[in-house]
Amino acid sequence: MYEVELKCRADHESLRKKLDEVGADHVDSRTQNDTYYNAPHRNFADTDEALRIRYEQPADGKAVTKLTYKGPLVEQESKTREEHETVVEDDQALTGILSGLGFEPAVRVEKNREFYTLDGYTITLDSVTDLGEFVEIEQEADEAEIEPVRERAVDILSSLGLDPSEQIRTSYLGLLLADET
Amino acid sequence: MYEVELKCRADHESLRKKLDEVGADHVDSRTQNDTYYNAPHRNFADTDEALRIRYEQPADGKAVTKLTYKGPLVEQESKTREEHETVVEDDQALTGILSGLGFEPAVRVEKNREFYTLDGYTITLDSVTDLGEFVEIEQEADEAEIEPVRERAVDILSSLGLDPSEQIRTSYLGLLLADET
Repeated sequence: MYEVELKCRADHESLRKKLDEVGADHVDSRTQNDTYYNAPHRNFADTDEALRIRYEQPADGKAVTKLTYKGPLVEQESKTREEHETVVEDDQALTGILSGLGFEPAVRVEKNREFYTLDGYTITLDSVTDLGEFVEIEQEADEAEIEPVRERAVDILSSLGLDPSEQIRTSYLGLLLADET
Repeated sequence: MYEVELKCRADHESLRKKLDEVGADHVDSRTQNDTYYNAPHRNFADTDEALRIRYEQPADGKAVTKLTYKGPLVEQESKTREEHETVVEDDQALTGILSGLGFEPAVRVEKNREFYTLDGYTITLDSVTDLGEFVEIEQEADEAEIEPVRERAVDILSSLGLDPSEQIRTSYLGLLLADET
């Protein structure tokens, strides 16, 4: 399975009205506070790795802390990389462990996410600190379905008053790092 | 509070009979499989740090994985060191994260622990792979109580047919490392 995903900037206030009009379902919302770490023995920017603590607070539910490691790309074409993630009970202790080992917080990505569903797509309204408001539309697809699924996503974005040609392919982390330089 | 603790070698079969005779309560037992890691950027043997994954299986209960970091001694006298520990949900993912970051398993300490209580003391029968059978007796004490609590522990060990003068002050990790050299 592949994840077909389009992302662009969007004014959330008007987008919410449009989503309402077209009958999209609001299913969930949550905040995600991500801290990306630098390693004491490697420059992750060079090695294309990432170590992240994600503190996630669902609108109604228990906060969860996750530790994630993403290795370098092992296959360029499909963007395949090694990834390991686990829930961790005590986020303070985890921060202490990483700090003790010499890992240092490098970048924080804080966002509030509102999830809608429409025609089998997940539409996510992301409000990202220091970056602004975005929308992501995504759906999983087999290889043969990628093109029609993408085209339909473009149509939906247009019907929501957005311009799909202004697609952003950079991650929020990448956008924040670009802002710093 | 201080932890008053004595440890010595003990034949568990005869010790269990003695504990039965003196009316000690068997409260719990569990296995602990510890993996100590080496860091890619420091020699923990030199820096006196430790990074450990503990996989703990209670006799009746759910297995738990814990990640623990112990920093170097900050105060020799009281053996004070920075310590951070958290429960981690997915032990396979945690192993993958450490491996991805370049940490390597260095020593494994596997033991089965049986816990008894007697006169306010916890008596632990440790069966350690490659090291053999041990007993630990411990109780928490205020500073003023340390001596009487230690003396009473010595008396109890004697009454159980053990020789308290053969006390071992080295950790199981330390004993295993000493065996290797």
